[in-house]
Amino acid sequence: MTIDTGLAALSPLLGERLSRSKPDLDAHATSETHFAPVRPDAVAYPETTDEVATIVATCAEHLCPVVGWGTGTALEGHALAIKGGLTVDFSRMDKVIEVSPENMTVRVQPGCTREALNLALRDTGLFFPVDPGANASLGGMAATRASGTTAVRYGTMRENVAGLEVVLADGRMIRAGGAVRKSSAGYDLTALMVGSEGTLGLITELTLRLHGQPEAISAAICAFATMEDAVAAVTDTIQMGVPMARIEFLDAATVRAFNAYAGEDMPACPHLMLEFHGSETQVAEQAQTFGEIAADHNGRGFRWSSHPEERRALWSMRHNGYYAILQSKPGHRALVTDVCVPLDRLAEAVDAAQTDIATSRIDGPILGHVGDGNFHAILLVKEDADLDEAHRLSDLMVRRALDMGGTATGEHGVGIGKLDYMAAEHGAGWDVMADIKRTLDPNNILNPGKLVRLNG
Amino acid sequence: MTIDTGLAALSPLLGERLSRSKPDLDAHATSETHFAPVRPDAVAYPETTDEVATIVATCAEHLCPVVGWGTGTALEGHALAIKGGLTVDFSRMDKVIEVSPENMTVRVQPGCTREALNLALRDTGLFFPVDPGANASLGGMAATRASGTTAVRYGTMRENVAGLEVVLADGRMIRAGGAVRKSSAGYDLTALMVGSEGTLGLITELTLRLHGQPEAISAAICAFATMEDAVAAVTDTIQMGVPMARIEFLDAATVRAFNAYAGEDMPACPHLMLEFHGSETQVAEQAQTFGEIAADHNGRGFRWSSHPEERRALWSMRHNGYYAILQSKPGHRALVTDVCVPLDRLAEAVDAAQTDIATSRIDGPILGHVGDGNFHAILLVKEDADLDEAHRLSDLMVRRALDMGGTATGEHGVGIGKLDYMAAEHGAGWDVMADIKRTLDPNNILNPGKLVRLNG
Repeated sequence: MTIDTGLAALSPLLGERLSRSKPDLDAHATSETHFAPVRPDAVAYPETTDEVATIVATCAEHLCPVVGWGTGTALEGHALAIKGGLTVDFSRMDKVIEVSPENMTVRVQPGCTREALNLALRDTGLFFPVDPGANASLGGMAATRASGTTAVRYGTMRENVAGLEVVLADGRMIRAGGAVRKSSAGYDLTALMVGSEGTLGLITELTLRLHGQPEAISAAICAFATMEDAVAAVTDTIQMGVPMARIEFLDAATVRAFNAYAGEDMPACPHLMLEFHGSETQVAEQAQTFGEIAADHNGRGFRWSSHPEERRALWSMRHNGYYAILQSKPGHRALVTDVCVPLDRLAEAVDAAQTDIATSRIDGPILGHVGDGNFHAILLVKEDADLDEAHRLSDLMVRRALDMGGTATGEHGVGIGKLDYMAAEHGAGWDVMADIKRTLDPNNILNPGKLVRLNG
Repeated sequence: MTIDTGLAALSPLLGERLSRSKPDLDAHATSETHFAPVRPDAVAYPETTDEVATIVATCAEHLCPVVGWGTGTALEGHALAIKGGLTVDFSRMDKVIEVSPENMTVRVQPGCTREALNLALRDTGLFFPVDPGANASLGGMAATRASGTTAVRYGTMRENVAGLEVVLADGRMIRAGGAVRKSSAGYDLTALMVGSEGTLGLITELTLRLHGQPEAISAAICAFATMEDAVAAVTDTIQMGVPMARIEFLDAATVRAFNAYAGEDMPACPHLMLEFHGSETQVAEQAQTFGEIAADHNGRGFRWSSHPEERRALWSMRHNGYYAILQSKPGHRALVTDVCVPLDRLAEAVDAAQTDIATSRIDGPILGHVGDGNFHAILLVKEDADLDEAHRLSDLMVRRALDMGGTATGEHGVGIGKLDYMAAEHGAGWDVMADIKRTLDPNNILNPGKLVRLNG
């Protein structure tokens, strides 16, 4: 009963699809993360749910850790095999199984990426809206409860996963939810699995909710004298019921980085960038309504358009913001924070974060999905002392967010990066999470070391 | 360690708020249900979360069952103390604690009813949309994952409960979620508790999502030659992205009952009734768009209005439908079915149900929240043989819904009425639910006998 005997037992089933080659192990030793690389003992490439079930049952028998892998874009080290064992790479389970326009749902395999799904949906009039930036796998997005820029309108993976097929820690397969739009039949196992980061089961199929492709899209941009003005405009727009599809905040430091990157000359002050989805009339009305609200809050240089090329130009700063920030300090990498607070505390949280960063040894432009109260500081680090400073700043932001009734992670997840805050965030609730983990995975083989701590 | 010793231990804490009087026990022996009355051993009226925690901790020590009670409007026997013990009546914990317009949330105690909440919100520009018909308590609505006519636009309690305070089976209190709009921090305990029917904990406080009061409301009604035409119009309207606030189906039998009840002369054929929320322009546009879609599906006599009195008149049939059906057979009571199916199977499911009812010994008009695929047959029964027939018909509907990928209960919950279908609906998932129940309530004191079976 070791990792090696487990892998040996799987070898006849998977043949060449069980890899122990160095390049394969290296490719699964790191993701978009600041954590040190750590290789799994092997990588499996299953092609069916039955194979996944056999893999997990075999690993359970041999007490071999099992870690799911989508596209390796997790930011908190979720998919790193920190206890060794087998990484299950879902890249060969990437099909769009069935689109159901009448139910506004689609069934996909977990390795299907959101861009591949939307390409497959292109001619159906439907689309899948959750957009975390990276072209992540849909299984990974469900496992981490991903969201991104469109959550303010369409919700996160919590709202958009209608059903799941999951292989449990003993190899049993369960189905939860499905194409039915609602149900009051028992505990919400779908919601329990979404965001469980592979610690309760491996997702082998998803039923996702689809939305109608908008007939028209408009984009808008507006500069504000202060961050407080910008946030007040966000709150007013939400309270007016204007159905924004996206509303993004960029601070003055981000604008300066973009100006340097793109040779632009935007005013170096906080900006909001918005997108509206609807009919031509609606998106025009909505943009104009926002323009009026912005004017009430000292907004300046408000512009909007529903022409595709002009829209792209208006949003160029948001699309290139992260890269512009990275390029602003060559040789640096980023530690990205992810707190989310109630909207009535957002201005205070951003202001405090900016003050902390300004008085620190490192730079950290801020941008965020402010319609949700979620913002990211892109903390730029080079030396070890910088990384220590980034951790100190991140820690201040998280503790302040928790004091405000917020969360350590709005969308990136717990993984190993946010584990130390879970006790403070959830109190006795975190013990309940550990109890559930022990019940569903008594030998702790599913992504061990993540999300919960089982020994005090 | 008996029910009696437990109640004796609670007596000093609660004084007169622990009642064993016959009227009190009788008042908590039955709800809006066809199940035989069953009295609890006592009724407690706590006033604080701390009292609830002490009550549960004491009951845990004495192995005394604890059953939560809101307004007694559950339809599947959820709140009946079928194993005896203590009913915890939340009527003294009915406060609106704090409205937060900036966060679009409100904190309430579990005994607050949805009508009381909306009354308190009247001058805020906000409202709470979930509307199951009955003026239920919000704690009870969360515990049963209630929904109703507005779910097609605003979602169910799943989407509208942002956070909970819950007393667990050992008396510990946990908080999950809150005013923050999203989080990726661990297992979704809020969603796990919503719909758990008091079997995992007692809800002592809720944070609910609010929505802007619509500037204007329009209502519409349209008759259809066939049920299939009506359902096709529903599907098209959803796919067009028309944001209906309500869309209700009434079959010809319901219309006949209403005509007799109200002295009206509506055409005795299937009808759809709709409501739209938005600006004056939007609700006019939306009603007209629906009118065009209805015309494509042989809709007849389409009418709409945004004037309050005309709206009420147009919706009179829906508001009075249930009572009209009950009055159509004096001396009869109703067994109400509650299946929900994927939209692409809805016409087939309704058609089969109508055929079954037509060839049975009883009457059963059908109405439903067809935008969600959820419909109710109001099976009218008087004698025992009628009730047997109603159970046979309900059983046929449920099994057919499950075959179609639907659910035994779209919104009424499991309680004791739907327990026999859970194994078929969830397969191994139902065993997982039982595992979770055993973990969180090892002595099975919380609403025992409901939702899961712990002994095979």
